[in-house]
Amino acid sequence: MKTMDWYNGCLVLLDQTRLPAEVRYVRCKKPEEVAEAIKTMKVRGAPAIGAAAAYGLALGAVQDNSTDKESFIESLQKISELLGSTRPTAVNLFWALKRMMKVVYDTHSDDVSELKELLLQEAHKILQEDLEMNRKIGEYGNSLVPRRAGILTHCNAGALATAGYGTALGVIRAAHEAGKQIQVFADETRPLLQGARLTAWELMQDKIPVTLITDSMAGYLMKKGRIDLAVVGADRITGNGDVANKIGTYTVAVLCKEHGIPFYVAAPVSTIDMTLAAGDEIPIEERESVEITTIGGQEIAPRGVRVFNPAFDVTPNYLVTAIITDRGIVRPPYEESLRALF
Amino acid sequence: MKTMDWYNGCLVLLDQTRLPAEVRYVRCKKPEEVAEAIKTMKVRGAPAIGAAAAYGLALGAVQDNSTDKESFIESLQKISELLGSTRPTAVNLFWALKRMMKVVYDTHSDDVSELKELLLQEAHKILQEDLEMNRKIGEYGNSLVPRRAGILTHCNAGALATAGYGTALGVIRAAHEAGKQIQVFADETRPLLQGARLTAWELMQDKIPVTLITDSMAGYLMKKGRIDLAVVGADRITGNGDVANKIGTYTVAVLCKEHGIPFYVAAPVSTIDMTLAAGDEIPIEERESVEITTIGGQEIAPRGVRVFNPAFDVTPNYLVTAIITDRGIVRPPYEESLRALF
Repeated sequence: MKTMDWYNGCLVLLDQTRLPAEVRYVRCKKPEEVAEAIKTMKVRGAPAIGAAAAYGLALGAVQDNSTDKESFIESLQKISELLGSTRPTAVNLFWALKRMMKVVYDTHSDDVSELKELLLQEAHKILQEDLEMNRKIGEYGNSLVPRRAGILTHCNAGALATAGYGTALGVIRAAHEAGKQIQVFADETRPLLQGARLTAWELMQDKIPVTLITDSMAGYLMKKGRIDLAVVGADRITGNGDVANKIGTYTVAVLCKEHGIPFYVAAPVSTIDMTLAAGDEIPIEERESVEITTIGGQEIAPRGVRVFNPAFDVTPNYLVTAIITDRGIVRPPYEESLRALF
Repeated sequence: MKTMDWYNGCLVLLDQTRLPAEVRYVRCKKPEEVAEAIKTMKVRGAPAIGAAAAYGLALGAVQDNSTDKESFIESLQKISELLGSTRPTAVNLFWALKRMMKVVYDTHSDDVSELKELLLQEAHKILQEDLEMNRKIGEYGNSLVPRRAGILTHCNAGALATAGYGTALGVIRAAHEAGKQIQVFADETRPLLQGARLTAWELMQDKIPVTLITDSMAGYLMKKGRIDLAVVGADRITGNGDVANKIGTYTVAVLCKEHGIPFYVAAPVSTIDMTLAAGDEIPIEERESVEITTIGGQEIAPRGVRVFNPAFDVTPNYLVTAIITDRGIVRPPYEESLRALF
């Protein structure tokens, strides 16, 4: 099952807000539709958002009527701004848009139709490369997984969050493929339940043993000795190794520290933002209260209650045992080891 | 709004499974109905469960046809067993049943109708005393609350969990009544959302400032410096000060330790079980997976997913800054300080 595909001049997205009840695809013909899909989390997960945005820009390019390169670039910049305004935290979004724009800036040709073709090729490349990167992340990450292991994961950093295979779930998939006896515990990940709806579903499809828990149960399992390692994805990693990821990740990392359990972050290098020195510089998206006060349209809290709904938190580098990238496993001190990757 | 009341020979319970959408009362005429109400969590919270069970036994007594004391006691023992089998973790249930049976054992009279009356009076006393204990807990606890404070609480240890006023929320109410500037953050408390449905609702009714968050957000708030103390209730406290409470409490306590935030437990002495030396002896109830996989009948996880659903966890004594009881504030070493209470 593909998270996204390019078909007949459209970006086809698996609508992740409807899983697991319904497997439905949405077709995006315009960049505005891609922006909307990102904003409403039909497509989510840092690497998938990056690839979708690249296609969004390609869609805008294909449909643009400019005849000269200058006005073409102007159009693209506007579309890039639109796509970039959807979600502030995951850096892959900006990374992908920048990479796409670079194609236009770096190509000497003034032929707009040639540029359009190059942009579409670049979007394909971003998607394809992401899949390859995840395989490598899996390979490197597998070396950290014992032959028998209880593995905790938070949110969904799986095939659904990427071009396929996944980052954190890529590590889990690789360990499973290597014949290791693993038992995954999936935090349900409130408010949007990506763990319950997506991670549990993905792993069940691949027949990887998974047990669903609420976010509040991870500590209990660790205390009971059932968790040997935690592995999560990332939305942005700063130059010092601080990690922005789905809200609740920081709590998992603190619990790992308390129990002496390794806490791993799996992410492609496109998630590393060397322009930011530390995690407190990462903008943290706050989302609507309705995500907490209702589930599937049903009210679960008193009407009018005040709500705080940050979508991400930042895990400081001292809680991160290692970062598993497509270019190898990186360990503290991260200022040096991350710089060495580039 | 009363959690429970004795009216016209019935135990009237506020059905907490329907809050906040609906304020509905259920009437229990038979001990079996009380047992069912406890099991399905129409009435919940350790002190409230204790009082409800006492009334359940009183109901059974009133309806019993025994003419001699011996067969009357035999009947009561069966009813006590039934009520005691509903939920294993909260000790107040067993404490209340034991206290009720003691009335029968200790009364020299063989007059069954007199015993019935004494049992009903004892149930009334348990309910009334609980309210008074909560006021005292509030008074003691208030001394620990700064003039301005962000206060985190988990689950519902409020008026709804007790005969009224609450234990953890009793502390919060007392601080509010004392004119302190408090801001409460209520963990929603998955799976059954007692924080969202009950705590937020209760505090809003009393116009105490409350912000609802998911369980996974408490760590983020602490890191941001928004939480000055955490206060929770308890289902059972062992002789060494280990605390069984709603699943997720342990995680709150670990987060408090990481951030140097005091972690307080508020509970009446009826919650303290001096017969158990440590928390690992406390039976932890596991509940049905449907509590996690559905919300209001709506499926939120893949069908057939494996689920782990412990209803409680144990917070070890070294994470507990102080225990606020109706007989005063108790601090480590708990082996000594708890013994001194009795």
